[in-house]
Amino acid sequence: MASEQTFPIALRAADVAPRAKLSVYPEPYASRMTGREKRQLGDAFGLQNFGVNLTRLAPNAMSALRHSHTKQDEFVYVLQGTPTLVTDAGRTVLSPGMCAGFRAGTGNAHHLKNETAEDVLYLEIGDRTPGDGADWPDDDLQIIEIDGKRRFAHRDGTPY
Amino acid sequence: MASEQTFPIALRAADVAPRAKLSVYPEPYASRMTGREKRQLGDAFGLQNFGVNLTRLAPNAMSALRHSHTKQDEFVYVLQGTPTLVTDAGRTVLSPGMCAGFRAGTGNAHHLKNETAEDVLYLEIGDRTPGDGADWPDDDLQIIEIDGKRRFAHRDGTPY
Repeated sequence: MASEQTFPIALRAADVAPRAKLSVYPEPYASRMTGREKRQLGDAFGLQNFGVNLTRLAPNAMSALRHSHTKQDEFVYVLQGTPTLVTDAGRTVLSPGMCAGFRAGTGNAHHLKNETAEDVLYLEIGDRTPGDGADWPDDDLQIIEIDGKRRFAHRDGTPY
Repeated sequence: MASEQTFPIALRAADVAPRAKLSVYPEPYASRMTGREKRQLGDAFGLQNFGVNLTRLAPNAMSALRHSHTKQDEFVYVLQGTPTLVTDAGRTVLSPGMCAGFRAGTGNAHHLKNETAEDVLYLEIGDRTPGDGADWPDDDLQIIEIDGKRRFAHRDGTPY
């Protein structure tokens, strides 16, 4: 029998080690995530139904490629700095104490960009509903099933 | 056909109106939630898979009765003040930038209490996995199915 994993009672969020992997995207997209640092706070407590990350964007970094989800809801709360939220509706500059939610299935693609000279710090939350799909309207990227496995592919179906 | 509901692009969290209902608990427990104010940020964007609340605790207020969930993960991130987290392991004083996660199914009951003279402000996140159950080890409260409906009841099974 595996011993039960124990988790901390509480943590200072800034003390959680940043995720080692830069991005799950294939190249050339992974490299575009340079300057983004994610601390996986929910995982630190063994949470399974949703993730909570404390994410830092250096100047010129972005939260993700602009994308929408089919099943996963997402939410961001800005702690520091003034990221620009880009959606299908255009650009909105956020500031500390502002938040935005991205309801699954709307097709409204979104991301945050740090277009300032100061770091941006925010909390991001996303659930882990099975069977989620995503769309990246600005990039040559999609997720499709190849040989029964979900993989990143070019728009023409060629796998990365 | 119902017209599609539209949601804001972003919001200042403090501008979201507090929830009108004090508590879902039956009396005498609902009255114990006096001094707690919840702004339902996730709902403001139509999120369905999880809730995100900006919650303010006045001096002497608490986040909830101390409880555990069977299926729902929960997470809190402190923005202001120094709430006391009470779990089966005892008391831990939190401060801004600290967080705690409560993994479903552990049975470890938890809540936050504001034992200070200053307000406490935090973000709380919980998913909406169907079939969730809860336990309140310190109180005469349980949720049971009565006539096919989930209801609050005393420990002896008498409905409230």
